[in-house]
Amino acid sequence: MIKSRLIQAAKGDYPADLVLKNGQVIDVFNGEVFQADIAVLDGYIAGVGQYDAAVQTIDLQGQYISPGLINAHCHVESSMACPAVYCMEESRWGVTTLITDPHEIANVSGLSGIQYMLDASAHLPMNYYMQLPSCVPATSFEHAGCTLSANDLMQFAEHPQVLGLGEMMDITGVLGCHADVLHKLDCFSQKIIDGHAPQVGGHALQAYAAAGIQTDHESISYAEAKEKLRAGIAVLIREGSASQNLDVILSGVLKENITTNQLAFCTDDKHLADIRQQGTIRWCIKKAIALGMEPVTAFQLATINAAQIYHLPHLGAIAPGYQADFAVFDNLHDLNVTRVFHKGKEPAFASAPVLPTQPSVHLAPFTAADLVPKLEPDQSYPVIRILPHEIATEKGEYTGTGAQKAIAQGKLCYITVLERHHATGHIGCGLLEGYGLRNGAVATTVAHDSHNLIVAGTNAQDMEIAVREIDRVQGGYTLVRHGKVIDTLPLPIAGLMSPWSAQTLNAKLDKMVAAARQMGVAAWNDPFITLSFMALPVIPKIRITDLGMFDAENFMFYVVPAYQNED
Amino acid sequence: MIKSRLIQAAKGDYPADLVLKNGQVIDVFNGEVFQADIAVLDGYIAGVGQYDAAVQTIDLQGQYISPGLINAHCHVESSMACPAVYCMEESRWGVTTLITDPHEIANVSGLSGIQYMLDASAHLPMNYYMQLPSCVPATSFEHAGCTLSANDLMQFAEHPQVLGLGEMMDITGVLGCHADVLHKLDCFSQKIIDGHAPQVGGHALQAYAAAGIQTDHESISYAEAKEKLRAGIAVLIREGSASQNLDVILSGVLKENITTNQLAFCTDDKHLADIRQQGTIRWCIKKAIALGMEPVTAFQLATINAAQIYHLPHLGAIAPGYQADFAVFDNLHDLNVTRVFHKGKEPAFASAPVLPTQPSVHLAPFTAADLVPKLEPDQSYPVIRILPHEIATEKGEYTGTGAQKAIAQGKLCYITVLERHHATGHIGCGLLEGYGLRNGAVATTVAHDSHNLIVAGTNAQDMEIAVREIDRVQGGYTLVRHGKVIDTLPLPIAGLMSPWSAQTLNAKLDKMVAAARQMGVAAWNDPFITLSFMALPVIPKIRITDLGMFDAENFMFYVVPAYQNED
Repeated sequence: MIKSRLIQAAKGDYPADLVLKNGQVIDVFNGEVFQADIAVLDGYIAGVGQYDAAVQTIDLQGQYISPGLINAHCHVESSMACPAVYCMEESRWGVTTLITDPHEIANVSGLSGIQYMLDASAHLPMNYYMQLPSCVPATSFEHAGCTLSANDLMQFAEHPQVLGLGEMMDITGVLGCHADVLHKLDCFSQKIIDGHAPQVGGHALQAYAAAGIQTDHESISYAEAKEKLRAGIAVLIREGSASQNLDVILSGVLKENITTNQLAFCTDDKHLADIRQQGTIRWCIKKAIALGMEPVTAFQLATINAAQIYHLPHLGAIAPGYQADFAVFDNLHDLNVTRVFHKGKEPAFASAPVLPTQPSVHLAPFTAADLVPKLEPDQSYPVIRILPHEIATEKGEYTGTGAQKAIAQGKLCYITVLERHHATGHIGCGLLEGYGLRNGAVATTVAHDSHNLIVAGTNAQDMEIAVREIDRVQGGYTLVRHGKVIDTLPLPIAGLMSPWSAQTLNAKLDKMVAAARQMGVAAWNDPFITLSFMALPVIPKIRITDLGMFDAENFMFYVVPAYQNED
Repeated sequence: MIKSRLIQAAKGDYPADLVLKNGQVIDVFNGEVFQADIAVLDGYIAGVGQYDAAVQTIDLQGQYISPGLINAHCHVESSMACPAVYCMEESRWGVTTLITDPHEIANVSGLSGIQYMLDASAHLPMNYYMQLPSCVPATSFEHAGCTLSANDLMQFAEHPQVLGLGEMMDITGVLGCHADVLHKLDCFSQKIIDGHAPQVGGHALQAYAAAGIQTDHESISYAEAKEKLRAGIAVLIREGSASQNLDVILSGVLKENITTNQLAFCTDDKHLADIRQQGTIRWCIKKAIALGMEPVTAFQLATINAAQIYHLPHLGAIAPGYQADFAVFDNLHDLNVTRVFHKGKEPAFASAPVLPTQPSVHLAPFTAADLVPKLEPDQSYPVIRILPHEIATEKGEYTGTGAQKAIAQGKLCYITVLERHHATGHIGCGLLEGYGLRNGAVATTVAHDSHNLIVAGTNAQDMEIAVREIDRVQGGYTLVRHGKVIDTLPLPIAGLMSPWSAQTLNAKLDKMVAAARQMGVAAWNDPFITLSFMALPVIPKIRITDLGMFDAENFMFYVVPAYQNED
């Protein structure tokens, strides 16, 4: 029996597999640091104290040893790396547990996408947990790859990697007591249900909490976070590439000295290049300490708090019986990660295989002419106006003549979304201002949340070539100019992820971004990420989907003759 | 659907059953107090904020409202009151949740005793949870009413009132990896396992924690508590009638300012008379505040901490979706409880019925002569020496002649344990010094942990009458003098509990204690409780069981001819 060996090793009567000597142990229970040895057997901690007998001994020489860090909420697909590559990047910076929501791939591939992420992560040296995507499709204003009902999700409810239901973005559905939404919440009421409630407060927040939502990672102010905490909702402080909420939330926490055990750290979406430079949760700890938080408190947020919020009783602490996941740090200021352990071993990612996937780009026949609106000279057209450094957009307005002129001047371009999951032929056409593109086309299958094929371009011919190139490589990023493909990053896994290593992927991305700049895309503007948010109909004020130009404030499509799809 | 009504009530679109207006709400998540109304529907909290529409409105007029208090560990039988009466006493002082261990009745009646406590508590206005007794019998040195194996306990594992396995007192069995003990721990490894590890530290504590023990309520110093916390064991701070550990533990906590979320309050054993005067968990909060703890922190220990330690996600906080359990206090200094709510209603205990029970006293035929040792003049005899105000005893020594003389002088008395569960006829005889009894006999069926019939007396005749009186009433307390029964408290429920009200029971106990004093029992000495611990073989240094006088340091029986039972 394994437990009896662990008990004997704890007593010192049985040699440990590994003894980590002389570490400064971060004690997340008492909020202290103390020097001790850690005895590990069979992947679990046997004891903390003075231990010697071991197969292997590593002298930590007074370095700080923390429980393995926990990223409480992330979307792996947003990194464009496959799970093995993404996990390796997280692991290098001390993360041993990820709580992921495969919302992106589920919008493309449904249950088989979820299964893919489970299979691709099951044998990695990482505790890879999953919250099942609750909102597929995210809205009814576009065509996603599939629709997931409560019954669909329940097929995975008892999977050992599954903890509960992913972020419930359908606030209208919750507050309106829509039967399908409440059914999903009921199905997972004994598990963890994540929320997504940006700027929801007052009675609406009370109702959202009463529905059984347990976490939220959308707070962008301390007041918002505090109101959610008060309502019993754990606050996952987000520090990603686009959204960085740590400073503002923790400044308030420190000022008012509130209880911190319902706070944890997450990234939501963080790009590989940023992870390479900063890490994820280790970066959060470092920022928290810099703000004046007690170092061990910051480690609590990064470890035991997340473990308790997600009911993972074997994770998040250095104590007997806990899984032997550790991150070793040089000191509590630089927070360089010098070693990582997962189940008592230093993680080896090299041999992780990348699984094959099904083709995910299925387009109906089309012509170049289908990709641009048929503008009438005197008709007035709404356009999407990109605002620098903001994810929200403004609505602009051009006549047909004015638009043609602006396109010729490089001020405006076409933007088009093609349904790419079931070859339905839906194509939504529109106009985009402020993207900067002067000549050519940019296309991608990464287009939140339905991940249809989105293409921006100054002429129908380059746009057609770009779309056909994306079809050829079955998803990815491409740049086309003067009738030629400049460069392409294939993302063959659901049109979202690459099997490449982080280094190769980053190098390619850097090269393509530079090429896009040559084509005029503004310097403040990531040419692909900006594009990928143009199809997200839940963010104000104006977007485009495969069903056409969308008024994201009034939740209706613009009725403009030439914009309408012929279907 | 109930949830949709709760959501609508939270939005203010559906009238609440109850709105508590203008309370100072104790926010255990942030550690703050804020003024708000609380809307309650169907026994759950719909929302906290500004609410008006309600069937019933109660204006709290600025009083403090806390989540219902949680007593994290108690033995109801030790109060001698049946569950309905005990719960009423706890409830009056703001407790809405009990985590009980029916260890006493299980030693008498086994599974049917556990079933009795579940049945007797199921419909009370109290969240009555149970940890299944792990150690029945407590030792192999005595005959209990039954033996409970892991498989026996598993019959109750999925009962909605059962949270896990009760205090694992068999430390030797855990550290020695005894198969039956590890089997019990394995069976409950997905639930909560309580510990009982007085003064266990170092490698032994690491091993105990590695075995999966999650809580402990035996710490009597801050250092002991802190070492347990560090090992991942939640510390239930005990403040009962006999053991009071709050001051010493919390003084250390406050001095070192450690994290407090793995601390909760419990009573273990607290007498009805003390509860009447002080309450239980409310008394802990008051003492903690008096020591200098932030009031809301003390409330966290009394509510959310216990709920989280015992995985009760619907309890311990005032937030949407939580059960509507509240205690209302006049202020944070006096802490008088002015109102209590359980599932949104003020608890009504009056109509709680007392269930019938099976007879539990089964004695083999005996004579007066069987109840006293046959002392030989020059033989030396070990005696139990009671130490004032201590539960531990010392070993004394008398010759047969010396003992007879001391008995005549009122310095010594006989002490005898009769097996009472299965009429096996086992009788253990011995001598007791320091009890104070000058003339007569005192007998009881409350005798930890096996609850055999224990009788102390100065002569065999009074002892016989006392034993026959206890047999007649099927368990209880009795006093006999000069051949006559002075008074008897029947405890017909397993020989441990009375169906009487707290008032009646307390009055009777007061009267009998006074009568015992008349018979010479020392004033520092509760005549019944002192006696009830004389048969507990796990506490040093010398005890008596139905198998004879016991060396509780070396875990062996004394071999003295006249002490030996003839069986």
